[in-house]
Amino acid sequence: MAFEITEEFLEKLVGFIYENNDSEIKQLFEEVHFADIAEVLDEVSFEEAIYIIKLLDSEKTSEILTELDEDTREKILENLSTKEIAREIGEMDSDDAADIIGELSEERQLRVINALKDEELAADIKELLSYEDDTAGALMAKELVKVYETWTVAGCMRRIRGQAQEVTRVHSIYVVDKEDKLVGRLSLKDLIIAKSDQKIADISKSKVDAVNVHENDEEVAKIMAKYDLEAIPVVDDNNVLLGRITIDDMLDVIREEADKDYQMAAGFSQDVEVNDTIWELTKARLPWLILALFGGFVSVSVLGSFDGAMGNFPELFFFTPLIAAMAGNVGVQSSAIIVQGLANDSLKGSLFKRLLKEILQGLLNGFVLAALLMSAGMLFLGFPFKLGITVAASLISVIIIASIIGTFIPIILAKKGVDPALATGPFITTSNDILGILIYFSIAKLVLGF
Amino acid sequence: MAFEITEEFLEKLVGFIYENNDSEIKQLFEEVHFADIAEVLDEVSFEEAIYIIKLLDSEKTSEILTELDEDTREKILENLSTKEIAREIGEMDSDDAADIIGELSEERQLRVINALKDEELAADIKELLSYEDDTAGALMAKELVKVYETWTVAGCMRRIRGQAQEVTRVHSIYVVDKEDKLVGRLSLKDLIIAKSDQKIADISKSKVDAVNVHENDEEVAKIMAKYDLEAIPVVDDNNVLLGRITIDDMLDVIREEADKDYQMAAGFSQDVEVNDTIWELTKARLPWLILALFGGFVSVSVLGSFDGAMGNFPELFFFTPLIAAMAGNVGVQSSAIIVQGLANDSLKGSLFKRLLKEILQGLLNGFVLAALLMSAGMLFLGFPFKLGITVAASLISVIIIASIIGTFIPIILAKKGVDPALATGPFITTSNDILGILIYFSIAKLVLGF
Repeated sequence: MAFEITEEFLEKLVGFIYENNDSEIKQLFEEVHFADIAEVLDEVSFEEAIYIIKLLDSEKTSEILTELDEDTREKILENLSTKEIAREIGEMDSDDAADIIGELSEERQLRVINALKDEELAADIKELLSYEDDTAGALMAKELVKVYETWTVAGCMRRIRGQAQEVTRVHSIYVVDKEDKLVGRLSLKDLIIAKSDQKIADISKSKVDAVNVHENDEEVAKIMAKYDLEAIPVVDDNNVLLGRITIDDMLDVIREEADKDYQMAAGFSQDVEVNDTIWELTKARLPWLILALFGGFVSVSVLGSFDGAMGNFPELFFFTPLIAAMAGNVGVQSSAIIVQGLANDSLKGSLFKRLLKEILQGLLNGFVLAALLMSAGMLFLGFPFKLGITVAASLISVIIIASIIGTFIPIILAKKGVDPALATGPFITTSNDILGILIYFSIAKLVLGF
Repeated sequence: MAFEITEEFLEKLVGFIYENNDSEIKQLFEEVHFADIAEVLDEVSFEEAIYIIKLLDSEKTSEILTELDEDTREKILENLSTKEIAREIGEMDSDDAADIIGELSEERQLRVINALKDEELAADIKELLSYEDDTAGALMAKELVKVYETWTVAGCMRRIRGQAQEVTRVHSIYVVDKEDKLVGRLSLKDLIIAKSDQKIADISKSKVDAVNVHENDEEVAKIMAKYDLEAIPVVDDNNVLLGRITIDDMLDVIREEADKDYQMAAGFSQDVEVNDTIWELTKARLPWLILALFGGFVSVSVLGSFDGAMGNFPELFFFTPLIAAMAGNVGVQSSAIIVQGLANDSLKGSLFKRLLKEILQGLLNGFVLAALLMSAGMLFLGFPFKLGITVAASLISVIIIASIIGTFIPIILAKKGVDPALATGPFITTSNDILGILIYFSIAKLVLGF
């Protein structure tokens, strides 16, 4: 944990680059973890970053490349030749290699794959690229330790010594039959504890969880989290072992999913990061803001259509932002809880029960808030009783309706195959704003009769 | 993956419980994973759940208990005797055991710990309970595989066979000196590949990442994610090895953190779940709604203070919800991006640069939206030019100010040690609503002179 990027370190580094003092630069990075080097590259100029990448061993730089931000990596890869990229890719695990090649243009993808020295890796990458995004196949790595059920423990140990060299982390050893179909698994621990003349078939566990290569990646994440798995084998429709997915890859899927929901709730139309350019940020923010603006126009027209009330009940208009804000807040709360429930599969029970629960909650919240509103409004702001009762009744109705809408929009979106998190964005706030104002003035018209 | 809870399965199960047909029930659950059994317990009545827990082996039920929802577990534990709980706890890893004992009342905690047969586990649990919440110490497990640097590979293998039995997953073997200070690590793979007469000191990696027992758990999660670690050893201030944290525990920390941010953004004052009772949900929702209501009162007063404009410029009042909504949306966007940046440590550069970036974005968004507003308002709604220009100018000002506030409130909160996600809740929407309306009418007064 010791490494911190200091001003001093950066000054030294840039000085060495300026002097072309390659051996000192290598020395400087000798003991530094590749994840830290990736952060250093974000701190120096682009030309300096390229210089460092070209200088260090591809064993190290291949790891650095996988750690970099996608934008930075894209720019760096543009400045490397096909051959240089192929050398980096050659050091990577098949899943990382496929991810990074997938970011190149199609024409360049082919050139890089053809330039790879390792033909097996080239074939693996081609296979991985052929799977659809967001499936188990696109996520898995081809590297794994595989043994045949007919082997003995001793023979298995020998073979594993060979295979294990190229697999970074051995979680499980997968047992297959002669047709490469997955029939069991065992852990290194089981192997160490077993006697050397035992048959693999006798010490392996025949109950092995696996996912189909076409399974959705969020589904895979759920399965791994539920059963506390650190790695899961991936099979085709005939149960032939194709690869494995490890928990650290799943961690990225889980993080991305959480980030995406959060960003949708906050009103971004695409993935953003705090260090994106002003242009990228604006592109992500503006669509929702424009939608909200058009929603705002509708609320202007709604208010305009009630302008007859302005003469006798001007105070009514003072309450519109309050009513709209409450409708928006309640709607977002209701949606968020459904979105979370959908995300972790805990949404149970009938729709009718859920409706009843929302109405009851709305009534409870509504009455407390309406009571507060009436007492505060009449005591401190001196509003007449009739106006107070109008605003209070509207508040209760608006809260109940906003709860119901907030609850059902994500459920309906999910049923239609749309990401329900969409509902928590400005979409629901805006529609609840409008509806809230409409209900409010309709009730006011009924009670006050203007 | 095969298990699905079917109506048929549940009917069978409940039938057997009714008949006290214990052997059939055991048979039914024979091949079912404990995570699935935990889900079954959520589907049956509480009495049936207790019946099943008391019936099955504690080896299985201890795992089921760790999988259950906290509320369900609490109710079940209330119905078990101290002795029964101690039997369940005795089967758990020290970290799970400490978590679950920590949920009991202090008096009961002591009784259960005293009833434990395994004295080492009892001591471990006492130690784990002594660490503060949200620290590495509270999260770690005491079970790990530890070897001394002076041992040989062969001796090590023998000892490991003993230790590994009680450690569910062996990620790394930790190497310590004679004072139990952490000096290195090796993987099972390294051990298998090594020759049996080699010394541990010669084959182990001396560079080993570790965290201090008092380190914050979110910090641990960041380190593990950054360096792609599946387990990390925990040491005290003298570098003495105390325990280890595995990635599946970190996964829970990451999920909880993401859920918490999301819920704060959506306006909940405490952790909620879709299946909580109406009372629990209302308790979590009402505080923010009350805050929003009081914010609403302020906006009512602000509007009231401008009632002089009502005679000549009634249309101004129609625009208040639009202005307020835009201010709220922009503010939440700005805050959310800062909260994410803070969460993954990617917020870099000076405050001044950040300020400039926000102002430029605000100008860009503001001009586009103001142009849309003016053209639509004047063309379709027929507003006079002067009114159009007033609303447009206000919109730009409001957007810029909302961006700045949205950006700096989370930064300030984080500096003061408050969770910055608080800013994305109704807090920022409400204050931006008020400020937006105030700015809007102040500009209007200036331009139109009422």
